[in-house]
Amino acid sequence: MRVEEAGEFGIIARLRAMLEGEREGLVRGIGDDTAVIRDGAGGLWAYTADAVVEGVHFDPAYTPWHSLGYKALAVNVSDLASMGGGAPSFALVVLGLRGDAEVEALEEVYRGLVDCGEEFGCAVVGGDIVRSPASLFISVSLVGSIPGERYLTRDAARPGQAVLVTGTLGDSYLGLRWLMGGGSDSNVCARRHLYPRPRVGEGGKALEMGATSAIDVSDGLLRDLGHICEESGVGAEVFIEEVPISGDAEATALELGEDARRAALFGGEDYELILVADADRAPSLRDGLGLSVVGRITEGNEVRVLDAAGKRLDTDRVGYEHFKEG
Amino acid sequence: MRVEEAGEFGIIARLRAMLEGEREGLVRGIGDDTAVIRDGAGGLWAYTADAVVEGVHFDPAYTPWHSLGYKALAVNVSDLASMGGGAPSFALVVLGLRGDAEVEALEEVYRGLVDCGEEFGCAVVGGDIVRSPASLFISVSLVGSIPGERYLTRDAARPGQAVLVTGTLGDSYLGLRWLMGGGSDSNVCARRHLYPRPRVGEGGKALEMGATSAIDVSDGLLRDLGHICEESGVGAEVFIEEVPISGDAEATALELGEDARRAALFGGEDYELILVADADRAPSLRDGLGLSVVGRITEGNEVRVLDAAGKRLDTDRVGYEHFKEG
Repeated sequence: MRVEEAGEFGIIARLRAMLEGEREGLVRGIGDDTAVIRDGAGGLWAYTADAVVEGVHFDPAYTPWHSLGYKALAVNVSDLASMGGGAPSFALVVLGLRGDAEVEALEEVYRGLVDCGEEFGCAVVGGDIVRSPASLFISVSLVGSIPGERYLTRDAARPGQAVLVTGTLGDSYLGLRWLMGGGSDSNVCARRHLYPRPRVGEGGKALEMGATSAIDVSDGLLRDLGHICEESGVGAEVFIEEVPISGDAEATALELGEDARRAALFGGEDYELILVADADRAPSLRDGLGLSVVGRITEGNEVRVLDAAGKRLDTDRVGYEHFKEG
Repeated sequence: MRVEEAGEFGIIARLRAMLEGEREGLVRGIGDDTAVIRDGAGGLWAYTADAVVEGVHFDPAYTPWHSLGYKALAVNVSDLASMGGGAPSFALVVLGLRGDAEVEALEEVYRGLVDCGEEFGCAVVGGDIVRSPASLFISVSLVGSIPGERYLTRDAARPGQAVLVTGTLGDSYLGLRWLMGGGSDSNVCARRHLYPRPRVGEGGKALEMGATSAIDVSDGLLRDLGHICEESGVGAEVFIEEVPISGDAEATALELGEDARRAALFGGEDYELILVADADRAPSLRDGLGLSVVGRITEGNEVRVLDAAGKRLDTDRVGYEHFKEG
């Protein structure tokens, strides 16, 4: 079977079985935002890797080199945040370069990496540069400390718990549409698309305040909440009226003729956190960290969207899967 | 300036300056086989990453998928070995796949990764799968424990010290030539090319026995010894008669019409270790670990090759640099 037929998640399921099993020092393997390993002295580290490929994950036509480097690191820091981890962290960067790439562009990519690292307590400590004949890629790995013995997982959601999110959703998708339409990167949504801000502080604090599960929004709210549901063996309801949408998203959507609410449900790459916590903890998390309560965990295995009257809405589209177009 | 004009080492020098500086927990940054980081409890970890790209680092025509996975991990384990580190270690694998790749091939790649990990105490704990339109790539990162407070570096070589190597050299290059000529992978040199065995045990033991510097042979003996010289600000002499060459390399070279000695000096990808130690430690290292004493560190900044009579030989070719052909 070809990769394009099996799809990303089909492949991951097949490979996952090969990587499972207990190993010395391995606390948590495949199936979450990061692996968790234990050092010789008993401390926990989150360990994660991600790559972006030209023509698949970004288009140089509307991705400044500096942003490309910044974001390549930010998405890994975001994975660390979704485990409740934080600084210090360390990153290695493997750059796959076409021979005709400009060295100045490359330096801008590195400047973006270093700038992101400085903001979020991550030292870029080295890596590798290789030749890639057809398309540039950046593969980043990150190892970061997890304080204490607990961390946030995808598989700890239980029926009755509340679903919360940081910040606002849909901005990044609308910013991307804005840029693709030739809009300037001074648009706030475009900035959010190019320079996502991983929620490192919120992840760690939410863990302290009793959140049990988390994931970062890379594939879209419904899709990523679906990952939590799948790993936890539960379903979820999303209250569409409660999904936080920024004024900038509303304005940008209006100009683009897009639906900001749809962007907030399906749009990816916001790198906000979806957090799950017991219902009685939700108010303090909401007020203490400025989160929005957007839904609750249910029995079953579906992610359903409810309107203000509690009526189920028909969501006819699913998120973006990398190997299957559209 | 374009990447192909600047060359790999030119680019690395430019980027290196951007990544230097002290950071919390960072013991050793860019400029060695691995970065070294300190965990919260004071323990040291080696952290490294490498990538292989189809058409640049391997040709699927003579690289079995299983070998591709095995080797992609082995080269990272070898970097760990060259710091004197060992098990346990943990690896993340980012696969960049064409949509027309076969899932079965992919599973073979993973099987190779897992098999290598099991042999060398490395748990493959996850990673990412992304689409790569034109060429397959595998980007592996590895974090592994360093016992104690010391590790082997590239910059600790001093004039008068001895240069030693593990195993034999040139086999991998000759094995590659063999495969490229249509030869079967049952040839011992071909096996060594496809399944390099990182010297994890030897690295750790050499560190215990007083070795100070090390590097693994990825670019060839002269080139990699040159990296040690550059980082240490020294030169070196290599005694050509002492460079260890296997009977299989001699036989394969004969069949191919190649020069086994030249292969041993210039051939890459043996993943043996070059070790530097005080001259009075050399005999015990040689006898205890089965190493060969192949040269000595000198003043200056050149790597010179001497014949049995101590006469300098003319080496008219340098190793392979990725961005400059030939």
